[in-house]
Amino acid sequence: MTALPKTPFLGVAYYPEHWPEERWKIDADLLHEAGVDVARMMEFAWDKLEPESGEFDFAWMDKALTIFQEAGISVVLCTPTPTPPPWLTSQYPDILRVDDKTGQRAVAGSRRHACCNVPAYRDFSAKIVKAVAERYGDHPNVVAWQIDNEFGCHGTVRCVCDYCRAEFQKWCERKYKTLDALNAAWGTQFWSATYHKWSEIPVPAPTSASHNPGLLLDYRRFSSDSWVSYQKMQIDLLRQYIGERPITHNFMLRFFDLNYRDFAADLDIVSYDNYPHGMSGPSECAFNLDLMRGLKRKNFWIIEQQTGHVNWTPFNPPAPPGQVRTWTHQAFAHGVDAVFYFRERAVNIGQEQYHAGLLKHDGTPDRGWHESKQVKADLAERPALTRPQAPVAILWDYEDLWTFELEPHNSAFSYYREALDLYRTCWDQNIPVDILARDADLTGYETVFVPSPALIDEAQVQKWRSYVEAGGNLVVLFRAFFKNPGSTWSDQPMPAGGLSDLLGMTVDEFLSIPLVPNVGLRPPIDKADDWNDDRGSHVNDVSARPGIGFGENFGLPTKTRYQLWAEVLKPTTATAILRYSDGYYKDGVAATANKVGQGTAYYLGCWCDPILPRVLWQALGLQKHVVTSDVRGAVTEIVKLVDETGQNVDVLLNHTKHTVTLPETSK
Amino acid sequence: MTALPKTPFLGVAYYPEHWPEERWKIDADLLHEAGVDVARMMEFAWDKLEPESGEFDFAWMDKALTIFQEAGISVVLCTPTPTPPPWLTSQYPDILRVDDKTGQRAVAGSRRHACCNVPAYRDFSAKIVKAVAERYGDHPNVVAWQIDNEFGCHGTVRCVCDYCRAEFQKWCERKYKTLDALNAAWGTQFWSATYHKWSEIPVPAPTSASHNPGLLLDYRRFSSDSWVSYQKMQIDLLRQYIGERPITHNFMLRFFDLNYRDFAADLDIVSYDNYPHGMSGPSECAFNLDLMRGLKRKNFWIIEQQTGHVNWTPFNPPAPPGQVRTWTHQAFAHGVDAVFYFRERAVNIGQEQYHAGLLKHDGTPDRGWHESKQVKADLAERPALTRPQAPVAILWDYEDLWTFELEPHNSAFSYYREALDLYRTCWDQNIPVDILARDADLTGYETVFVPSPALIDEAQVQKWRSYVEAGGNLVVLFRAFFKNPGSTWSDQPMPAGGLSDLLGMTVDEFLSIPLVPNVGLRPPIDKADDWNDDRGSHVNDVSARPGIGFGENFGLPTKTRYQLWAEVLKPTTATAILRYSDGYYKDGVAATANKVGQGTAYYLGCWCDPILPRVLWQALGLQKHVVTSDVRGAVTEIVKLVDETGQNVDVLLNHTKHTVTLPETSK
Amino acid sequence: MTALPKTPFLGVAYYPEHWPEERWKIDADLLHEAGVDVARMMEFAWDKLEPESGEFDFAWMDKALTIFQEAGISVVLCTPTPTPPPWLTSQYPDILRVDDKTGQRAVAGSRRHACCNVPAYRDFSAKIVKAVAERYGDHPNVVAWQIDNEFGCHGTVRCVCDYCRAEFQKWCERKYKTLDALNAAWGTQFWSATYHKWSEIPVPAPTSASHNPGLLLDYRRFSSDSWVSYQKMQIDLLRQYIGERPITHNFMLRFFDLNYRDFAADLDIVSYDNYPHGMSGPSECAFNLDLMRGLKRKNFWIIEQQTGHVNWTPFNPPAPPGQVRTWTHQAFAHGVDAVFYFRERAVNIGQEQYHAGLLKHDGTPDRGWHESKQVKADLAERPALTRPQAPVAILWDYEDLWTFELEPHNSAFSYYREALDLYRTCWDQNIPVDILARDADLTGYETVFVPSPALIDEAQVQKWRSYVEAGGNLVVLFRAFFKNPGSTWSDQPMPAGGLSDLLGMTVDEFLSIPLVPNVGLRPPIDKADDWNDDRGSHVNDVSARPGIGFGENFGLPTKTRYQLWAEVLKPTTATAILRYSDGYYKDGVAATANKVGQGTAYYLGCWCDPILPRVLWQALGLQKHVVTSDVRGAVTEIVKLVDETGQNVDVLLNHTKHTVTLPETSK
Repeated sequence: MTALPKTPFLGVAYYPEHWPEERWKIDADLLHEAGVDVARMMEFAWDKLEPESGEFDFAWMDKALTIFQEAGISVVLCTPTPTPPPWLTSQYPDILRVDDKTGQRAVAGSRRHACCNVPAYRDFSAKIVKAVAERYGDHPNVVAWQIDNEFGCHGTVRCVCDYCRAEFQKWCERKYKTLDALNAAWGTQFWSATYHKWSEIPVPAPTSASHNPGLLLDYRRFSSDSWVSYQKMQIDLLRQYIGERPITHNFMLRFFDLNYRDFAADLDIVSYDNYPHGMSGPSECAFNLDLMRGLKRKNFWIIEQQTGHVNWTPFNPPAPPGQVRTWTHQAFAHGVDAVFYFRERAVNIGQEQYHAGLLKHDGTPDRGWHESKQVKADLAERPALTRPQAPVAILWDYEDLWTFELEPHNSAFSYYREALDLYRTCWDQNIPVDILARDADLTGYETVFVPSPALIDEAQVQKWRSYVEAGGNLVVLFRAFFKNPGSTWSDQPMPAGGLSDLLGMTVDEFLSIPLVPNVGLRPPIDKADDWNDDRGSHVNDVSARPGIGFGENFGLPTKTRYQLWAEVLKPTTATAILRYSDGYYKDGVAATANKVGQGTAYYLGCWCDPILPRVLWQALGLQKHVVTSDVRGAVTEIVKLVDETGQNVDVLLNHTKHTVTLPETSK
Repeated sequence: MTALPKTPFLGVAYYPEHWPEERWKIDADLLHEAGVDVARMMEFAWDKLEPESGEFDFAWMDKALTIFQEAGISVVLCTPTPTPPPWLTSQYPDILRVDDKTGQRAVAGSRRHACCNVPAYRDFSAKIVKAVAERYGDHPNVVAWQIDNEFGCHGTVRCVCDYCRAEFQKWCERKYKTLDALNAAWGTQFWSATYHKWSEIPVPAPTSASHNPGLLLDYRRFSSDSWVSYQKMQIDLLRQYIGERPITHNFMLRFFDLNYRDFAADLDIVSYDNYPHGMSGPSECAFNLDLMRGLKRKNFWIIEQQTGHVNWTPFNPPAPPGQVRTWTHQAFAHGVDAVFYFRERAVNIGQEQYHAGLLKHDGTPDRGWHESKQVKADLAERPALTRPQAPVAILWDYEDLWTFELEPHNSAFSYYREALDLYRTCWDQNIPVDILARDADLTGYETVFVPSPALIDEAQVQKWRSYVEAGGNLVVLFRAFFKNPGSTWSDQPMPAGGLSDLLGMTVDEFLSIPLVPNVGLRPPIDKADDWNDDRGSHVNDVSARPGIGFGENFGLPTKTRYQLWAEVLKPTTATAILRYSDGYYKDGVAATANKVGQGTAYYLGCWCDPILPRVLWQALGLQKHVVTSDVRGAVTEIVKLVDETGQNVDVLLNHTKHTVTLPETSK
Repeated sequence: MTALPKTPFLGVAYYPEHWPEERWKIDADLLHEAGVDVARMMEFAWDKLEPESGEFDFAWMDKALTIFQEAGISVVLCTPTPTPPPWLTSQYPDILRVDDKTGQRAVAGSRRHACCNVPAYRDFSAKIVKAVAERYGDHPNVVAWQIDNEFGCHGTVRCVCDYCRAEFQKWCERKYKTLDALNAAWGTQFWSATYHKWSEIPVPAPTSASHNPGLLLDYRRFSSDSWVSYQKMQIDLLRQYIGERPITHNFMLRFFDLNYRDFAADLDIVSYDNYPHGMSGPSECAFNLDLMRGLKRKNFWIIEQQTGHVNWTPFNPPAPPGQVRTWTHQAFAHGVDAVFYFRERAVNIGQEQYHAGLLKHDGTPDRGWHESKQVKADLAERPALTRPQAPVAILWDYEDLWTFELEPHNSAFSYYREALDLYRTCWDQNIPVDILARDADLTGYETVFVPSPALIDEAQVQKWRSYVEAGGNLVVLFRAFFKNPGSTWSDQPMPAGGLSDLLGMTVDEFLSIPLVPNVGLRPPIDKADDWNDDRGSHVNDVSARPGIGFGENFGLPTKTRYQLWAEVLKPTTATAILRYSDGYYKDGVAATANKVGQGTAYYLGCWCDPILPRVLWQALGLQKHVVTSDVRGAVTEIVKLVDETGQNVDVLLNHTKHTVTLPETSK
């Protein structure tokens, strides 16, 4: 078996089925010239591999593998299950999913139109996976496998077909054992929804008002679990044939319908599809890279990266010169072992014809091809670098996100944005951040941020206490520990589950702050000057407080604005470090610090703007990790890596389209 | 039977099924301490009362009633029919409504998911109503009953299921007797829709273009009638068991899908759910209060009032200190006999967890609890007050509203806003207003406004003529009397049906005025500078006209802007009092006054801004009813009430969040 | 047979079924007095003509025809098929269409609710057409026939019912003969959609992601063809009974779901429904008129024109005095032989009651009636005028439009707007333009613009080459010749199919330019100042270039902005005439000129603003066709016509609502 290339390496998505056979060798050579070591193939090729039910055609794929092997390019093969072919959906139309937002069954002719809970889809998926695994499991040029492609894309995670309904009822029975337990967990006595038979439990298809939040949260869990189980079925099958070859699946940006931690647990390598044009800028790119690295706390792959314009945003602008190269190096600097470009060539058929590739539609090199070649040259000059553990961690939890997504209370409230705001505050100052699971081992971190941990977990409090006692800084943000696992509200003050003891405070009142000057629902034509509402205003640092280690007065303004969410706190053992400077809750406490053992547990009760007020920044000692740049007028990201000798190496990334000249001292 | 408390009194919504039994007594005592005399219970408790078909469990409710009785709180019981339980919808899935906007059948798991025209829902509703009536009809602590809860909420009035279709066809047959009559009433020869069998009549589910406006208007009537009949079925059943106890149902703000007058006719008391955060400010709150009082022309209840933030607006801000107290006193000042707070405690389960209550999620008093207590103390100091008949009335008609909702011609035209604009003009000057049915007895009113009475009613004209002849001022606004009951257009000049004789004018031309500078449908990218359109401009007072009683020149500008709608009038016996000052219809008549007997009939042909131009304000003599306040910088509403000795008592309401200091003279 | 009146003449839509019989004579006389010579009748009267299946009632229509004949008004009769009556849809509910956007079947009660591929609808359509043709085919007062009414209005062209699916599969089989050919044309190996049976081919109902663009483009062709075939069925039936009488159908403004060229081919006369309030101004009106004239390259009819406000825009403003008259004369000036006003009288029943007519709801003359009379008087004074061939042509193609509509790449890109921008550039200077089919004979045109001809057609290139060689100026705009007929992308450089040889250039890179400063998909709350994108900037004229005939320097600024789309060009034999002045492609070529024989083939690679940069304007010599007006402060359109003696006659149209005084010299 060919081993994986030395990392970091370059790859590409290649679709032999899209091109005439006589082109394959030309492409392989062109791609090799561009520095590509590995090609990913086959994820949408079910109809070519199995043109009719049970009749397989591998000749073309055999040939493609041989040609690429001869060109010096090894291959990641994919199971082709995201696109059940017409013969399958025609014979088994039940396979087609029923959308939870519209209640309507999809027709065929697209991708991801299948429901993973339909036995026919599972069975035929298993057959094609077994067939390709038997054929290519020990192929000498196949170095890794990808399961399916982008589970859940196009909003397809949650189906409400009859199979899903039956499976959900079984899932509930496995989870809750008794209907009494389920009814209690969801609080079904609200609106008279007590279930006396498992078969009475509905799926959250469109209805008159909203569904029970416990049912909705469990349906998110169930739907994610369904795809986890579908992935696991494929992994277990594959593993019987492929030896030690690693298995991966490609995750998406800004995608939260699946619990990626559960998927990552069953995979050897996390892969990620990096499309910067789907994001607001390089800080959000960096956030998503660090989020992916944190899923298994190890290096990962970018198995798709745009090589020019994409085809799915409203305007799809070009990628100016140098940008593909920068994106690639940004990825490597954030712990990526391989960047696969998407795709070999702008495709001449199907739904993605307007997506750029390394080659143009006419088969000649596009700008991306030249940049790939340049990256390969860059890597040859570059020492081997590794990314050390960061001083700061942000804890990220899909179920907390779902909880707020289902009931935001404030339509502008976003768990994702909260975590991203925290991340950007550090990124802007080049402070490295790791993004970890909410229950991660926190050894070695100076500061840990916990954005709005909605769901109560008493066991977790113990871990956090140990971390703080050993000297850590734990910063918990508003809306913490108030929801039980079934999305019912605790009858204890917030934060519940023992967290208030660790933090030394409780929440006396929470306030949702309108984004717009608006009381309630008002059509735009109305005037509201006769009615006052409370919108976010300011908090004051409570300075010169002994025992916390800060309080020096720099002569800077001590007021900070806040927005969207505010809580008035009641300290018990904690000290106030921020107080509201106006509003009817003027002088109320907005943030606290609680010394516990060698460390401090902070609670930040309002969404400051910027999210970390000066008093916290100072208390956490973040200033010492700031890396500044001498480069002016450019968004320059500086990433601190270490080489094989342990020496620090700063990687500078120029995220503008302008050429930047480095001063001597920073070279 | 315990009698109702002395009015005004305070109440609360209480849900024993949401709390452990050991909490009931604690809550009852806390609520009693807060001044609560009555609790409303049971409206969503069907599944607790009848856990399986025909098997009833009253033990828990018996206990709750006893505990509250011991705590000194009497109870309003509700029929629990808005939430058919899972066992019922599972056995009879036809019960689930089919939405008229999407054509799709709801799934269970929410509330109001049932169609009232399905026999199974009617039958099982009758069974549970009979069961609770038998059990609690003469319970000594039950003082009143509420039917169901908020008929029609979440847009559920109109269902298009097969049962509704069959019922609608029968309803049409009862109404029109013959298909010829129906075809004539709707004008079905338009677009070839003549019906030759009752069974051919469709329901207004989604179709290619719009449905016939006569069918649409009748489907609104039919749907409203269906719920009226469902309510009546419950009332008739209840009455057999509950003696003289009053029956109510809770109406909603800004809700026009049901003809509330028809519902009110069958009820003893009107109840209203007062959620100020769903409105634009205190004037709209006041409008809705007066609208509710007018439904039966007697005092009513607020059976739900928010006690802090709600959970269903985009941002759900808090209610600052004092606001709950002010809302409560505003309600009393507008003729409310009881204010029930919603709800006892922020609920820890289900779909409304983010709604505030008198108690917090943790069971401790929230700000609303303290304000309830304060209101109780306020009431103890306050004399008994009654609200006298106002000098001004606005006539309000649900069918006129529907007529414009179905065919606004101008997308910004709103019957509700027109009535609200009229109301606000008075409210801003503290002039009391009653809101009455279009066919109400007008004895005693100085001035009566009739916002856009679309539907022709010849009998009505006679009543209005008598009113004017006896000295009244009748002010009819634009778009009057042009539609027959089946929503066909009169072939007489507007206003038809004899109204033009009373008003002494006809309409020569009507003009819809764009809100935006736009001719027709233009995408935003287009420029339109090469094309002129007519937007609202100005009218001039025609001053110094003899015989009307005004015409003095105050040196003020006599121009008033108008918007949205304008009509060029042809006076016959009337006098012009406003003329257009520009536009191609410059000098055309915009408003008229017609002396009839001792009074005057006015017609206002354009939507002025403000809606009442100075000339009308003067002619109507409204100035003498103005009440001014010495309080500066605050929205202060002053309501004139009378005490038991007949003395005037002014109630001052501070609608801001600022403390207001009254000058000595106004105390 | 009564002949058609001498052109130009006036007509009206008349609906006898909407009025009592005693009114018919009054109306006919009033309409005759207003100058109306022809009335159109019967298009929605199916239920009156055939009240029950197979039972016909012609008495009323006989009478109406007689009355109008006596009043001196001849008649255009319509087949009444857009409104299948309730008895038909009740018996054959499959007739009701299934919407391609929602996947839901319509209910009856509207119009255009039928699918033309359902045999029952075809059969019953044939029966009623045969019946009316037999009855009135040789009626002496019937002078022409209209098929149905506004095929496709309300977005009803594409149905996805089971009949359509079966017909589409047959259509595909007829077109492609073999599944291999179809699979190749659509590129179905993308996303595994290879079809092995015709019955596997889906219809484009809602699915998870998008459908194959080849399938989508063919479904547009198929759906258009289906209605063409439905029209043809009626034409063939009619022709057997009506002798030489012309047959027409009424087309709509801004309506592109049907390929009107195919419809026009089977018709004797094109008719058009002219509703200026649906457009942005008189230039767009003019564009649509010229588009209609070009469908058959001969004069046409306006068979509906608004006579006042319409009822289907957001605000529906009035038409000020003189506007109906102006619209009518604008139509005549653009080659219209007849203007039929819509409609006789504002209708008192049904869905269009708010639409103005020549008479008011009360039957008295409205402003439109007086203006019609004025137009008749104008015509009596006017010499007979004809519209000569224009010096400039724009080529327009429905399939190119569909191609971009399905895959715009840039959401603001619009083929229609591009053609309209070209047209307006000429219209603003009173240069006449003809709008022709893409494959039209171009003899006699000085300059021909080809807006973005997406679909490759090698045969076409030869025709264009001949045109240029003979001295013509051909101007091809960006996004040319890159898509094969099945909407797959050519593997040749753009423009492919031999067009690059004629133009002497290829496209090196294309850039989609965001309308807003936005990289990719960013929610509004995000900041993007850390990321640069490329938005449209400027191009420079490359002046003083020999051999092209321009290059003089007028001292004017030579920079022009561009927007939305830009291409960097590689000239082969052509000369650069525009270069980009900034962006990373600074100095790249933006437009080229290629001398071929006696003419020049231009390529414009970016959407300039205005769309024709000065360099092109000069090179094309357009200045000599400019007609200027001495009238200030008014949008005055000047149309050059010729009288019977061959003398030029300038028609001046005042499109403002202001009176304009002409200087002596222009009278």
